[in-house]
Amino acid sequence: MKKKSLPLGKVYGLLEPGPVVLLTTARKGRANVMAMSWQTMLEFEPPLVGCVVSGRNFSFAALKATRECVINIPTVELAATVVGCGNCSGRDTDKFTRFGLTPQPAALVAPPLIAECYASLECRVVDTRMVNRYNFFVLEVVKAWIDPSCKDPQTIHHRGHGAFAVPGATIRLPSRMK
Amino acid sequence: MKKKSLPLGKVYGLLEPGPVVLLTTARKGRANVMAMSWQTMLEFEPPLVGCVVSGRNFSFAALKATRECVINIPTVELAATVVGCGNCSGRDTDKFTRFGLTPQPAALVAPPLIAECYASLECRVVDTRMVNRYNFFVLEVVKAWIDPSCKDPQTIHHRGHGAFAVPGATIRLPSRMK
Repeated sequence: MKKKSLPLGKVYGLLEPGPVVLLTTARKGRANVMAMSWQTMLEFEPPLVGCVVSGRNFSFAALKATRECVINIPTVELAATVVGCGNCSGRDTDKFTRFGLTPQPAALVAPPLIAECYASLECRVVDTRMVNRYNFFVLEVVKAWIDPSCKDPQTIHHRGHGAFAVPGATIRLPSRMK
Repeated sequence: MKKKSLPLGKVYGLLEPGPVVLLTTARKGRANVMAMSWQTMLEFEPPLVGCVVSGRNFSFAALKATRECVINIPTVELAATVVGCGNCSGRDTDKFTRFGLTPQPAALVAPPLIAECYASLECRVVDTRMVNRYNFFVLEVVKAWIDPSCKDPQTIHHRGHGAFAVPGATIRLPSRMK
């Protein structure tokens, strides 16, 4: 997908609705990707995101050591790929090759964007104090990319055991909330 | 809605997909409710949830002082109520009365369940170390309730400025993931 830069103040609108994301890391010249649903916004701008990357995930060591990652947001066309990424490990699998994902260079961090995802958020780890207890990393989004042609993204929202809710209608109500 | 007890190990499936929730607190005999989207699972069982309750929210002081709350999950029928709750403050408004919400006694905590929500999670604050820096509370879900008749809940997922994605289809893929 052809992506353009997204103002950092608009990042919260991508993550608030709770999509499954694909987190990319890179270490020793090798990129990896994992599926993730345990993330939340922590601050609007600069955008801070908190996320759980378990010590059982191969990505944990790379994230802790390099302090960089990219949060990529897939749509429903990638649902089988997302489940596939969640069901194997970067320890013994090159997931980009196995699932036909296309790495694209990021602007500010080493891990790649995933071309097939409609949005990608380049992140740096800014706080690791909750890692020991909760595997909880605080990330700052330093650069955001979005495919402007994707108006109502069909993000996928995990309900457990491979069941995903996919957005149908979008409703719009007058609101003073950001 | 008539709710039954839900095993705590199933709570993650309610919060992973990122629904807007209504957080109830109670202090000095008075209950309040706020709209919230910045939450994440932190652990499966016992279920731990991290959430941001801003110091600007009237609920902040109640949550910090009483260390109890209920996470109630509304469906699309309550969308206008959710926006209304987000656009006024418990400082000067009894939101239960204003929006016709029905408080129900919880089993283990003082704040009420909201009868009109299809699921309610009774919570205790178990960690406040991230409150000063991020307004981030760690909650343990101690009792969970769900309306068993609500099979594909039409939860609402905030995309910013009063726009909400509502689930359409549910897709199911074979997965070894929890």
